[in-house]
Amino acid sequence: MEATNKKEYFLTIIKKTLNDLDFSKNPKGLYTPISYTLNTGGKRLRPLLCLIACDMFAGDINDALYPAISLEIFHNFTLLHDDIMDNAEKRRNKQTVHKKWNSSIAILSGDAMQILAYQLLSKTPKDKLPKALELFSTTAMQVCEGQQYDMDFEKCSYVSQESYIKMITLKTAVLLACSLKLGAIIACCNEKDANNIYEFGINIGIAFQIQDDILDVYGNSNVFGKKTGGDILSNKKTLLLITALNLAKDNTKRELENWIKKDIFDNEEKIQAVTNIYNELNVKNYSNTKKEYYLTKAFEYLDKINIEEKNKELLIIISKELMKRNF
Amino acid sequence: MEATNKKEYFLTIIKKTLNDLDFSKNPKGLYTPISYTLNTGGKRLRPLLCLIACDMFAGDINDALYPAISLEIFHNFTLLHDDIMDNAEKRRNKQTVHKKWNSSIAILSGDAMQILAYQLLSKTPKDKLPKALELFSTTAMQVCEGQQYDMDFEKCSYVSQESYIKMITLKTAVLLACSLKLGAIIACCNEKDANNIYEFGINIGIAFQIQDDILDVYGNSNVFGKKTGGDILSNKKTLLLITALNLAKDNTKRELENWIKKDIFDNEEKIQAVTNIYNELNVKNYSNTKKEYYLTKAFEYLDKINIEEKNKELLIIISKELMKRNF
Repeated sequence: MEATNKKEYFLTIIKKTLNDLDFSKNPKGLYTPISYTLNTGGKRLRPLLCLIACDMFAGDINDALYPAISLEIFHNFTLLHDDIMDNAEKRRNKQTVHKKWNSSIAILSGDAMQILAYQLLSKTPKDKLPKALELFSTTAMQVCEGQQYDMDFEKCSYVSQESYIKMITLKTAVLLACSLKLGAIIACCNEKDANNIYEFGINIGIAFQIQDDILDVYGNSNVFGKKTGGDILSNKKTLLLITALNLAKDNTKRELENWIKKDIFDNEEKIQAVTNIYNELNVKNYSNTKKEYYLTKAFEYLDKINIEEKNKELLIIISKELMKRNF
Repeated sequence: MEATNKKEYFLTIIKKTLNDLDFSKNPKGLYTPISYTLNTGGKRLRPLLCLIACDMFAGDINDALYPAISLEIFHNFTLLHDDIMDNAEKRRNKQTVHKKWNSSIAILSGDAMQILAYQLLSKTPKDKLPKALELFSTTAMQVCEGQQYDMDFEKCSYVSQESYIKMITLKTAVLLACSLKLGAIIACCNEKDANNIYEFGINIGIAFQIQDDILDVYGNSNVFGKKTGGDILSNKKTLLLITALNLAKDNTKRELENWIKKDIFDNEEKIQAVTNIYNELNVKNYSNTKKEYYLTKAFEYLDKINIEEKNKELLIIISKELMKRNF
């Protein structure tokens, strides 16, 4: 099968498997919000990566299907609980669960989603189950750590670049890396290559998050028609803001700090002013260089993987789409 | 070893294993509330039941120790999240996590506790891991269902006795039953006896919850020096209130319904008035009969278990202590 056809095929069976989960059960108050959450869309990137990795290493993707779905459910559970913590109104253009229902419903249905993720992961073939469980739980705990660091950073006036990279590694990259390695484990891949694909995932994940930070300010409005500046408005400690705070001096530093402190402001004015500071400090360029560094590192790990090059094709396509945000 | 010595020995190793878990890690905001929660005390009943069952069926309790601890951590996680949903101020005479810190911290550290529970459960010997996981996840999901029904009932003016029994079965009894069956599974007990001890746990759990409902109103103040009436004040749908609502007629029914509707009242006055209605309707007797029914059923299941009677001794002692609330 051609790589792009394969991608469509994988996405089709992922969506079918998700759709076949039964959430019509009682109590409705528990299961309806889960079904709602899983139906808000999303790219299904994590299960896709899991199937791609399993297939790359000549595994049977049927063995990986439920574990793959468990990654999607875990990911959506973290978004659901994060949205309560951030008091977010919308997710993927739909009301968040805690707004549509209430916090108690959002907490409890999230808890149930985490259990469901483990139930589906437990369908991993028995001989690979202990390894799969260990990887999944370690990753899940790291994602919690990442969310905690992210919340901690909101209260810090200074965050080092190292701390930032560590935070996004935990919050975002480890789950992408875990998705790939889980597929590799199920395909009985050797440990060395399982670690290579894991490290590929870590570095692609970091690059992806940096790109997300850049696009929030410099979003390609030709293609996506959006340029939110949401991170600027909420003083989110992105790589851009951290770098700007490190580089800025004198007047520029004071101006940036003033914008961060201000409680009342015109949104457009703040976005424009902070973007001007970023431009002045060449923060976009700096961030792009960082992104490229991690991208290069990712592909070095992919190169090390000891399989035929044509079997890496789909993963390369997906990575490029991801970085172009066409995905 | 004598049964009571055995109990103390089991509790000692449970406490040691819990104490040896390392929560000094970073980020502190994630791990400190977990350590705080696990140090608020509690009877460690669930891990104790797990070790007792494993030992009863001649298993190696070292194999059951981490799975046993996972039950305690899961139980404490549910309390932590329930306390957010109920907006509770105190738990075991200490501030609840969401009051001491905040809701975000309480949500996230609870999530991490659930993952930790799975991490410890994963230390079950490999050949029994799939069964242990299936039992644990099914139970965990049922506990969520029970909590949802409990929240649903708060908004219902009528709850049937069957619905009430179903709710406490899910919210309380299944985890006690799971604790016993998990120990049995790890001891490689036959399926028939594993189910017998599970059903014993279900019925003891229901009896225990009914007794808890009774004690909240008719608490043996000679022994415990407390008689809170907290359930009456919060209109909690206990077996007593449900029964009273079913039995009351005319004036009595109106009076009871008025007390439920009232927003402003003197606490002592409400407790006294509702208790008087319960007395008039003989609700205590009725509830005690129900409790005895489930206790008898529990011991019928215990009788069926095909092991030497002396090996059932500790479980019988614990059950009696539990029902006397000396435990």
